[in-house]
Amino acid sequence: MLSLLSLRKQIDAGSLTPREAIALSEAAIAEREQDIRALVSRDLDPVVPERGPLAGIAVGVKDILDTAHLPTQMGSPIYDGWRPRADAAAVARLKRLGAVPLAKTTTTAFAFLDPTQTRNPRHPGHTPGGSSAGSAAAVSAGMLPLALGTQTGGSVIRPAAYCGVVGMKPSFGLLPTVGMKCFSWTLDTLGLFTAGVADAAHALALMTGRPSLDLPTTEPGTPRIGVVLQDFCATAEPEALDALERVRTATEAAGARLRDLVLPAVFAEAFGLHGTIQDFEAAQALDWEYTSHRADLGPLLGAHLDAAQGVSPKSYDASLKVADRARQQLADLFAEHDLDVILTLSAPGPAPEGYASTGDSRFNRLWTLMGVPCVTVPVGSTPAGLPLGVQIIARLGDDARALTAARFVETLMGERHC
Amino acid sequence: MLSLLSLRKQIDAGSLTPREAIALSEAAIAEREQDIRALVSRDLDPVVPERGPLAGIAVGVKDILDTAHLPTQMGSPIYDGWRPRADAAAVARLKRLGAVPLAKTTTTAFAFLDPTQTRNPRHPGHTPGGSSAGSAAAVSAGMLPLALGTQTGGSVIRPAAYCGVVGMKPSFGLLPTVGMKCFSWTLDTLGLFTAGVADAAHALALMTGRPSLDLPTTEPGTPRIGVVLQDFCATAEPEALDALERVRTATEAAGARLRDLVLPAVFAEAFGLHGTIQDFEAAQALDWEYTSHRADLGPLLGAHLDAAQGVSPKSYDASLKVADRARQQLADLFAEHDLDVILTLSAPGPAPEGYASTGDSRFNRLWTLMGVPCVTVPVGSTPAGLPLGVQIIARLGDDARALTAARFVETLMGERHC
Repeated sequence: MLSLLSLRKQIDAGSLTPREAIALSEAAIAEREQDIRALVSRDLDPVVPERGPLAGIAVGVKDILDTAHLPTQMGSPIYDGWRPRADAAAVARLKRLGAVPLAKTTTTAFAFLDPTQTRNPRHPGHTPGGSSAGSAAAVSAGMLPLALGTQTGGSVIRPAAYCGVVGMKPSFGLLPTVGMKCFSWTLDTLGLFTAGVADAAHALALMTGRPSLDLPTTEPGTPRIGVVLQDFCATAEPEALDALERVRTATEAAGARLRDLVLPAVFAEAFGLHGTIQDFEAAQALDWEYTSHRADLGPLLGAHLDAAQGVSPKSYDASLKVADRARQQLADLFAEHDLDVILTLSAPGPAPEGYASTGDSRFNRLWTLMGVPCVTVPVGSTPAGLPLGVQIIARLGDDARALTAARFVETLMGERHC
Repeated sequence: MLSLLSLRKQIDAGSLTPREAIALSEAAIAEREQDIRALVSRDLDPVVPERGPLAGIAVGVKDILDTAHLPTQMGSPIYDGWRPRADAAAVARLKRLGAVPLAKTTTTAFAFLDPTQTRNPRHPGHTPGGSSAGSAAAVSAGMLPLALGTQTGGSVIRPAAYCGVVGMKPSFGLLPTVGMKCFSWTLDTLGLFTAGVADAAHALALMTGRPSLDLPTTEPGTPRIGVVLQDFCATAEPEALDALERVRTATEAAGARLRDLVLPAVFAEAFGLHGTIQDFEAAQALDWEYTSHRADLGPLLGAHLDAAQGVSPKSYDASLKVADRARQQLADLFAEHDLDVILTLSAPGPAPEGYASTGDSRFNRLWTLMGVPCVTVPVGSTPAGLPLGVQIIARLGDDARALTAARFVETLMGERHC
């Protein structure tokens, strides 16, 4: 994979020009894209800034984020060839930093569940996950050192885990969603895909103008970790649980304090109501598409929005109240158990076989609803070569701690690709 | 003015067809628009649904809200002739209800402070206010029975008061902002302009699918009212204060319980930090426009965004924390004083003379930041004929109570135009 920090180090040292760094991405795309199919459109003659803290960094932009210089097609024929006037806020910011938004990456239609054409670079024949399929796959295939995705259920963490890359879903609101096609304004969160945790931390620090998010160059301390298995939903697959045990053993051996947590009942309740909130808002957010282009929505989204028409304001209001209570109790839980982070699975198992499904977001939806920062770290592969990830979760606004603990796990598990 | 409820009553009774109701708007536009200049673009051959609870209702849509059938130009040459692909969520909803989005209404550039060409229908030579200038003026001039506006500082309540119409800023998030040009995602709120309070309540009930927001046909009870004068900002003009006194006298005579409130210190602090939150977000939301088209932003917005580049994440984070504390204390204040609503001014005075300024939002910004529902009710005019309004504010989510109390004031002050 292409590491953002490694590229930037070479550029700063004068051993690589920004133009040459972009050419590395272009060469990798020329080699891999025909198999992976992660990109929807490309800037074939990009302006490459010579200066800026992200000069030389080619970025993939999920195709539900507006770009002025490339089409933005939402993974849907309804937006075939559509050209927005402006860049999404995050894209404009990346350009200011010197980065090159080189390509738009595949998305399931409107970031829901209808699969894309993208292949999992780590295992042909398995899904790359969704909805940010192209962003995860492009980073995994070494085509891009940074890609933007979005998560409403599990659309950053799941594909990152399936493709063996780092995925970061920051605290709700930390990265602006302006210029992103909305699905659910309470849930939609912009996130990042990179080769390593330090790459994601560096990009996030620059994009938000918050240097404190960058990882210290010294070794991170040993975190206090709460291990969560979400006993309110179906058991995960043995290979995913084995990976979690390996992380437990390694982090304890390295001096971390681990504690098993059973989440109070309000979290099971909130978990069950994620869909109510999402669907009530999606029915409004996609009202024009539903009313004018129902037949072109995609079979899964179309049927889902049919059902979403029936979600009542009353059940929506009640669900928001439960989510508020759960958010409060999550803050209390961190305090009560004196935790830095929560450790759980990134997905119930490795990427499922085939392309009919983008996999299962049941280890992601609750945390998206809580708005808390989540990082998935690759922690090895199944015997068949399918990547596995674990997820590190911190308090709302405590993104630095999530990244630091994720880097601690990454270092121990030896999965960093530079 | 054209009353939405009155038109609907005639349509339901069979004495007016939806097509004829739309024609009333078209005739009024033909007569008044050349003087008022409230409209940016018009649907000259509208499809008029025969059915639906808002069939026959012509709607004005502020030109920062996307429409698929009409240009959306943000009050800015940067978006000259721009045609979005989709309707904003609120526009799509109105169409489903049978309404006809007949025209786009003027907005200051990106809903900031650079004035529009729109004239105050109640007094030539005075501003109609902003930023939702065209929506307020079009309803005031009897051209439309319903118009959509947005408020980030005081952009619904202020122009409604200046133009002598009812303006309703619902609770934050009650109406979707999907498809609205974002200025500040913490503050941007969609609102309504109508001839009377019951018109606004009826439209809001239908748009949100919440029948409980509609006003009861029986007389409203007598509300418990806290009177607030915001002693932390400059004193209002005598004519506005006189109007407030008239409302006090009339409501007390009608049996309402009034109590003067001095807001605790956190509200002064939150009031002062509205701009920090707004500007930090606006710098991101308008990053593409600022970077690519600085010279075309408009003089006030351009200079403002220059300064906004310097707002730090630290001061933004601190401001959000103060706002959270103030929101909590506002809920406590309602409980402690056993209040239904707060009564305050809608603006520091009548519409200022001339067109160089859109007026002052200092009686609006705090309440926008609190996210609470606000209704402005016309309560007479100055000797020179300039409309005055008072503002009714309820708890977050208690929009029905704000509307009921506003109707109580409206009935007493006898300013309803049907």
